[in-house]
Amino acid sequence: MNIYDISKKTGFSTATVSRVINGSASVSEKTRAKVLAVIEEYGYTPNVFARGLGLNTMKTVGIMCSDSSDRYIAKAIYFLEEYLRKAGYDLILCCTGRDHSVKVKQMKLILSKRVDAVILVGSSYVEETDELNAYIVEAAGSVPVMIINGILNAPNVYCTVCDDHLAIYEITRKLLESGRKSPLFLCNSSSYSAKKKIRGFKDALEQFGIDHPDEHILTVYPPNKTGMVNYVRDRMIEADPDTDCIIAAEDMLAIGALKFALSKGARVPEDIAVTGYNNFDLCECCEPELTSIDNKLEALCEKSVSSLMQIFSDNARSVPKQTVYSCELVERGTTCFGK
Amino acid sequence: MNIYDISKKTGFSTATVSRVINGSASVSEKTRAKVLAVIEEYGYTPNVFARGLGLNTMKTVGIMCSDSSDRYIAKAIYFLEEYLRKAGYDLILCCTGRDHSVKVKQMKLILSKRVDAVILVGSSYVEETDELNAYIVEAAGSVPVMIINGILNAPNVYCTVCDDHLAIYEITRKLLESGRKSPLFLCNSSSYSAKKKIRGFKDALEQFGIDHPDEHILTVYPPNKTGMVNYVRDRMIEADPDTDCIIAAEDMLAIGALKFALSKGARVPEDIAVTGYNNFDLCECCEPELTSIDNKLEALCEKSVSSLMQIFSDNARSVPKQTVYSCELVERGTTCFGK
Repeated sequence: MNIYDISKKTGFSTATVSRVINGSASVSEKTRAKVLAVIEEYGYTPNVFARGLGLNTMKTVGIMCSDSSDRYIAKAIYFLEEYLRKAGYDLILCCTGRDHSVKVKQMKLILSKRVDAVILVGSSYVEETDELNAYIVEAAGSVPVMIINGILNAPNVYCTVCDDHLAIYEITRKLLESGRKSPLFLCNSSSYSAKKKIRGFKDALEQFGIDHPDEHILTVYPPNKTGMVNYVRDRMIEADPDTDCIIAAEDMLAIGALKFALSKGARVPEDIAVTGYNNFDLCECCEPELTSIDNKLEALCEKSVSSLMQIFSDNARSVPKQTVYSCELVERGTTCFGK
Repeated sequence: MNIYDISKKTGFSTATVSRVINGSASVSEKTRAKVLAVIEEYGYTPNVFARGLGLNTMKTVGIMCSDSSDRYIAKAIYFLEEYLRKAGYDLILCCTGRDHSVKVKQMKLILSKRVDAVILVGSSYVEETDELNAYIVEAAGSVPVMIINGILNAPNVYCTVCDDHLAIYEITRKLLESGRKSPLFLCNSSSYSAKKKIRGFKDALEQFGIDHPDEHILTVYPPNKTGMVNYVRDRMIEADPDTDCIIAAEDMLAIGALKFALSKGARVPEDIAVTGYNNFDLCECCEPELTSIDNKLEALCEKSVSSLMQIFSDNARSVPKQTVYSCELVERGTTCFGK
C-alpha cells in the first residue's frame, strides 16, 4: 500500500492524498475524512518525515519469527539485535506462530511500518508450495527479505543456512562406523530443516545398506514446551524402539531420549548412544552430558546482517543468494567413538 | 528533544522548523541545512504523519532488556510481544547489556523513536542510587515506564514484580522445618531481585536461630552462559561447603549445585536437597528433576501490558504503582518434605 494505491482507492490525486497526509489546511473535511478512512483500513503509515527530507529509510528492520521464547529463535534475535544495532538499525519484532494466515497478515503489517528489510528467523517460514510462499516473494518485491535457516529461491530473497543434511549424515555415519547397528532418528516437526535432517539420516542408512529407513524414524508431537522432556521419554517408553543409537533433531528431544534409555536400565553411551542438535546450554544439564551439533547460529545471524548492509549500500550484486555454513560436532558423555 | 528544543538550538521559529521537517519549498537551503544538522545531531525523529493527522501515537512500545537470549528475558519478550500485539501495539527491542552508560544512551535512542511507552525487563535496571536511576525517572517525564521485576518509586513509573523475598523465605523455612540444619544460598548477582532473595534467606535463618548468615551464602561469578553448569559445579567442589540443602537463586545454578552434590557421592535429596528458581524447562533435564519456584512471569507481563493500556486510555489514576505477585513452589525430585 503506497500513496498511489491510496490515490486509486479514494479517487483523489496523489497531490491531494499528500496534502491530507501532511495535514495541509487546503483540503476539505470530507476529502480528508475519506482519505483517512482508506489509510486506516489498509494500515498505511508513510514516513513523511523521511520522505520530506529526501531520505528513504527508517533504519528499521522487521524480524519475524514463530515464537521468540524458543531457545534457537531467542538466541537468533539476540545476535540479530546486536549486529543490527552495531550497523545503526532498529529491530521491530513480530511473533507469528505457525499459522499461515497469521504470517501473511503480520507480513503486511510489518511492511506497512515501512521497514527497510524483513528477516525471517527459523525454518518454519518456507513452505512446500509456491502458493504458500507467495507472500514472501511478494514482500521481497518491496524490501530485501533475509531468511535464516531456510531456503527460498526468489528475487531479492537471501538465505543463510547451516548444512543440516550433512551434519546428520555425518553423525549417523560416524555412529554406524563405530559399530552401532540400529540407529533411530527422533524428530518432532516437518519443517524445512527437519526434512533436510531426515534426508541426511536416510542417506547414511542407505550407504550402510540398512533397508526400510522409515522404520528407523520416530516422530513425536509434544503438546508444548513445558513437560517436553518427560513427554518424549514417555512416548519412547510406549514405542520401546529397539535401538543402540538415537539421533535427535533437537537437544530437548535428545534429553527425553536419554531419559528413556536410562529408564530401561541401558548404559549410556555403551548400550545406547544419544546425540542432540543445536548445542544449547541444556546439554550440560543432563547426566551424562549430551553430545550435540553446533549449528553456528551466531555466524548465520552475523552473515545475514552483513549481507543486508551490503544490499543497502547498493551492492546487492556482490551478495550471494545462499550462504551455507557447516555444523560442528561437540562430543560429550552420551557418545563414545572408537579410539 | 522536540520541535521546541530544535527551535531553541537553531534559533529559528517552530514554524520554520516545521516547514523544514515537512519538506516545504519556502525555506532557504542554508536554514534547511542548519535545522537538519541539529536534527541529525540529536537524533530527533518526529512522526510528522501522526501529528499531521492529529494523532499522537505511533502505537509502538520500546522494550529494553539486558540480554534477550537470557531465558527469563526471552520468555518475557515473548509474552510482552503477544499481549502488546493483541492490544494493537508494535514492539521495538533494544538490548543494552549491563553497562550503565549504554543503558542511558539506549534509553535516549529509544525515546527518539517516539515510542508510546518504555518497558524495562529484568531486575538489572533499578540501581542503588537516585543518580544512577535518574535516566529512568527522566524518561518517565515523557512516556510511561513499566518495570518488570524491579521496583522504582517515581512519577509515571509502574512496577510489576514477584515476591522473591517471600518465596526464598518460605522455601528456606520449609527446608529447615523438615529437619535440614545447614542451608546454603547460592547466587551469582547482586541485582534488585538477588538482594530480595538474600534478605528472604537471612530472615528465615534468623527465625531458626542460625547465626552468621553470611557464612551460609556462596556467590559464584560464571564468566558467561556457556559452560555455566560445570563452572558452578567446579567452584562448589573447590569451596566444598558443608551443607544439607542448597537454595539457588536460579535454575542453572541449582543444576550446577546438583552436579556438585552428586560428584561427592551425596544422595539427592536424602543427604542434600537442592532448589532452583524460575521453574524453566531445564528443571526436567537433570536427574533427579529440580524442585523450583515459578515466578509467574506471564502474569507479570500480562499485567504490565494491561496497566499500560489503562494508562493510554487516560485512566492512569486507577493503575497501581506497584503490583506484587506471589511465587509458587513446584516440587520435583531434588527435595522431599516430611510427610
